[in-house]
Amino acid sequence: MKKHPFKIYPNTPPPLAFAVSRRVRFEEVDSLGIVWHGRYPSYFEDVREALGDKFGIGYLDFFREKVAAPLRQLHFDYLKPLRLRENFTIKAQLHWSEAARLNLTYEIINEQGELTTSGYSIQMMVEPREQTVLMVPPPFFQAFLKRWQEQKFAG
Amino acid sequence: MKKHPFKIYPNTPPPLAFAVSRRVRFEEVDSLGIVWHGRYPSYFEDVREALGDKFGIGYLDFFREKVAAPLRQLHFDYLKPLRLRENFTIKAQLHWSEAARLNLTYEIINEQGELTTSGYSIQMMVEPREQTVLMVPPPFFQAFLKRWQEQKFAG
Amino acid sequence: MKKHPFKIYPNTPPPLAFAVSRRVRFEEVDSLGIVWHGRYPSYFEDVREALGDKFGIGYLDFFREKVAAPLRQLHFDYLKPLRLRENFTIKAQLHWSEAARLNLTYEIINEQGELTTSGYSIQMMVEPREQTVLMVPPPFFQAFLKRWQEQKFAG
Amino acid sequence: MKKHPFKIYPNTPPPLAFAVSRRVRFEEVDSLGIVWHGRYPSYFEDVREALGDKFGIGYLDFFREKVAAPLRQLHFDYLKPLRLRENFTIKAQLHWSEAARLNLTYEIINEQGELTTSGYSIQMMVEPREQTVLMVPPPFFQAFLKRWQEQKFAG
Repeated sequence: MKKHPFKIYPNTPPPLAFAVSRRVRFEEVDSLGIVWHGRYPSYFEDVREALGDKFGIGYLDFFREKVAAPLRQLHFDYLKPLRLRENFTIKAQLHWSEAARLNLTYEIINEQGELTTSGYSIQMMVEPREQTVLMVPPPFFQAFLKRWQEQKFAG
Repeated sequence: MKKHPFKIYPNTPPPLAFAVSRRVRFEEVDSLGIVWHGRYPSYFEDVREALGDKFGIGYLDFFREKVAAPLRQLHFDYLKPLRLRENFTIKAQLHWSEAARLNLTYEIINEQGELTTSGYSIQMMVEPREQTVLMVPPPFFQAFLKRWQEQKFAG
Repeated sequence: MKKHPFKIYPNTPPPLAFAVSRRVRFEEVDSLGIVWHGRYPSYFEDVREALGDKFGIGYLDFFREKVAAPLRQLHFDYLKPLRLRENFTIKAQLHWSEAARLNLTYEIINEQGELTTSGYSIQMMVEPREQTVLMVPPPFFQAFLKRWQEQKFAG
Repeated sequence: MKKHPFKIYPNTPPPLAFAVSRRVRFEEVDSLGIVWHGRYPSYFEDVREALGDKFGIGYLDFFREKVAAPLRQLHFDYLKPLRLRENFTIKAQLHWSEAARLNLTYEIINEQGELTTSGYSIQMMVEPREQTVLMVPPPFFQAFLKRWQEQKFAG
C-alpha cells in the first residue's frame, strides 16, 4: 500500500518478518480517547527490538560490539486510531541491504484485521562516541547477512 | 535541505513561523547519552501547540469548535544527536492550504546553530467521534485563513 | 518489608493478588543504564489494569459506570535498579475496603527473585466531571465486594 | 500540610527553595481530561534539575564527579487535578542533611494559588557502576554544604 524509500535490488533475499502483540494502555490514550500519535515510536521500537533479539542483531548485540544504530529517518502514516484497551499487532519487515544500515517497514493491524498505521525507519550504524558512520557493517552483522542469504532463518 | 510533500501554489501567502526554546531533560536521554528518537514527536508538538496558541488555532480552539485535527503523516530526519542538558530551538512553519488540513515543517537547531533534526507533519480535520474527514475547514479556521491572506499576522 | 498506610481490619477477606511479566525496554533506561525512576508509575499501572480486568473493576468498567478512580497517593521504595532488557515481574495486592476507594500494594521482582521496588497506591472513586468523592462505591463495585467476600475469586 | 519523613535537627540551615513554571501539555493529559498521575515524576524532576543547576549540584555536576544520586523513595499526594493547557508552578525545597543523601519536598500550585499535589523524594549518593552507597558526600557536595551553612545562597 505505502511506498517506502528503500531500493530493492533483484535477486536479493526476501525480507525478514516479525510481529508482536500489544494492548493499548491507559497512559497511551489522549484526551480525545485515542492513542496519542507520539506513542507510535515506542510501538515500532517494540517490534524492532523483538526482531533484533530473534535474529541476533538487537541492542545488546550492538552494545557488545561497540556499535550504535541510531535512527536517521522515521515515518508514520496514521490511517485509523487505536482506542483504550484495544488489542493490536505490530508487524515489521527488515529489508535486505549490504550497507551499514537497517531498513525496516512497519504495519499496525487492529483486531478487525484493519491496517491502522504504517511506516518505515532507516538506521545507520555508527561508532557510538563520535557518531561517525561505519563504511561497512561490523563482523557480527556480516555474519548475520551471510546466514540470511543462505536462508538459515526459514520459519 | 529536505523536501516536504506539500504542494505550494503560486501567489499564496507565505508560511507562518514560530519557534520555542527547550532544554534536554534527563528523562529524554537514552543509555547512549543522546535524546531517544521517540521524544521528538513531543518536541514537534511543543512548537505546534505554541504556534496554534499564537494564531488562535490551538487544541483548545479546535476542542471548543468540536473539531479534531489528528496527524495523518509524521516524518523525522535525524541529522545530529542532542545530548543531556543541551539547549535547542524548535522552529515550525505552517504552510498555506485552503483544505481542511494543517501542513507543517519543522527544524531543530542546537546551540551551535546546527540543524539537528528536520521533519514535517500533516493533520486532517475530522469530526472527533467518528473521525470523518471534513470537506472544508470550520468557520473559525476560515476566518483565520482570511486574516492570514490579508497579512494580519505581520511581525 | 515495607509498611503501607492502610488499616487492615480483623475478619476481612484476604487480599486479591495478580502479577504481570514485563521486560525493560530501551526507551525506559536512562543515561546511567538503569530504568528511570519515572517509568515505575507505568509498571504499577500495568499490573493494576490487569488486576482490574481480571476481577471486573478495570478502567473500562469504571468508564461504563461513569465513575473515575484517580490516584490520591502513590509511593515508591526503590531498592535495586533494573537494567536494559532485564525481565521482571510486577505483583499487586488489592486490600479489602468497603469504602469508595482502592488500596493496593506492589512488588517488583527481578529474575534472581530479588525485590527491586515496592510501593502502594490509594485511589478514591469520584464523579468524573467535578471530581467529587463518592460516599459509597457504585453498585457494580458493591457486587464485586460481595463476590470477594463470598470467596468467589478462588484460584 | 503533609508530613515528610525527614528528621529536621535544631540549629541547622533552613531549606533551599526553587520553583519553575510549566504549562500542561497535550501529551500529558489522559482520556479523562486531566494530567495522568504518572507524569508527575517528570514535574518533580524538572524543579529538582533546576534547583540542582542553580546550586551546583545538578546531574552534570554528579556525572563529572562520578557519583550518581538515584531515588530511594518517591511519594505523591494528589489533591486536585491539572487540566489541558493549565499553567502551574512546581516548588521544591532541599532540606539540610550532612549524610550522602538528598531530601526534597515538593508542591505544585495552580493558577488559582491552590496546592494541587505535594510530595517528597529521597536520593542516596552511590558509586554508579555497583550502586554502592557512599558513606560521606563527595568533596564537591561537602563544599556545597559549607556554602549553604555559611548562608552564601541568600536571595
